[in-house]
Amino acid sequence: MIEKLIAYFSKFQALSEDVKNIIRNDTEIRVIKKGTILLKEGQIPKDNYFIIKGSIRQYYLKNGEEKTSNFFIEEEWVLPFTNINKDGKSACYLECIEDSHLVIADDKQGNDFLEEFPEFYKTSQLILEKEIIRQQNEIAKYVNQSPEERYIDLQKNHSELINRVPQYQIASYIGVKPESLSRIRKRIATDLRLKKE
Amino acid sequence: MIEKLIAYFSKFQALSEDVKNIIRNDTEIRVIKKGTILLKEGQIPKDNYFIIKGSIRQYYLKNGEEKTSNFFIEEEWVLPFTNINKDGKSACYLECIEDSHLVIADDKQGNDFLEEFPEFYKTSQLILEKEIIRQQNEIAKYVNQSPEERYIDLQKNHSELINRVPQYQIASYIGVKPESLSRIRKRIATDLRLKKE
Repeated sequence: MIEKLIAYFSKFQALSEDVKNIIRNDTEIRVIKKGTILLKEGQIPKDNYFIIKGSIRQYYLKNGEEKTSNFFIEEEWVLPFTNINKDGKSACYLECIEDSHLVIADDKQGNDFLEEFPEFYKTSQLILEKEIIRQQNEIAKYVNQSPEERYIDLQKNHSELINRVPQYQIASYIGVKPESLSRIRKRIATDLRLKKE
Repeated sequence: MIEKLIAYFSKFQALSEDVKNIIRNDTEIRVIKKGTILLKEGQIPKDNYFIIKGSIRQYYLKNGEEKTSNFFIEEEWVLPFTNINKDGKSACYLECIEDSHLVIADDKQGNDFLEEFPEFYKTSQLILEKEIIRQQNEIAKYVNQSPEERYIDLQKNHSELINRVPQYQIASYIGVKPESLSRIRKRIATDLRLKKE
């Protein structure tokens, strides 16, 4: 299992055997049940997560309504320290939406590791850059896309999510009620049929 | 002028005199006129910007309409390489909205600097983390706030922007037409007056 994390890091930078062994010995992988809340709004985040298998949903709770802001799947990092209010407390919730295998890396552990193996900063930097690109992409969707366009984008670029995630969460992610998502899906299906005829 | 950049970096990490001197000798500061487009959609980004003085607006052009996604002011980085399509080309526009003094740092220069002074990776990492926090905060606004709430948030947390930026750009940033922004401002003013009475 841990070899998946090593293979992931190796995409960014060749790792020495020393670094690989530290990762093998010191990394904690946890199996987490579907439905587990990893972090609640108002809690102080301590851990970061790398998804070996499974998926995590990030959502906000506003007036009792869950508002999904992101889904994370295999080979993605979830960095809750980036999602805090000024008081350092989490602004959102994180939930495992499938049975998941997660690498748990607390902030201190990550920093200690970088102190000991500063050559790893380069990989760390590339991972953070990737994360910023991902988020800018999310912002671009809010700015430019209608809910229907967001759904089509999801079908095109993240089709795996549509089958793995409950429909009400997909609806909340594209910013509509579940009924509207049904209508959007019907409209898209009709358009496709008309195009084929 | 360059001392402002050095002071900024020093907030994250003590800099050696060597590093300070490299920054003093090798950094290019450019004075850019208000209204200059720094980058267009479809261009390949090459430079990053640190704002010494002035401001930059990021926007998308959709069906001929400018959709403002971000404002950047003094002591902020603008990292256009984070805002690209899969083909590596910019997805958005960047415009100086005031006469600005910018540090221009091209990607290669940044990477060469890190290779030569790897101790600087730590600062680089902290800056990227700050940027992710900023963006998560932007996403949270899209997910949780109505245009009126976004305007109130802007008044509370970035009041300097409201006076420095044309109103039509503020309207586009909170996702409404300029007429709606006028209505929102009137409503907020009335609410304030009622509260005082």
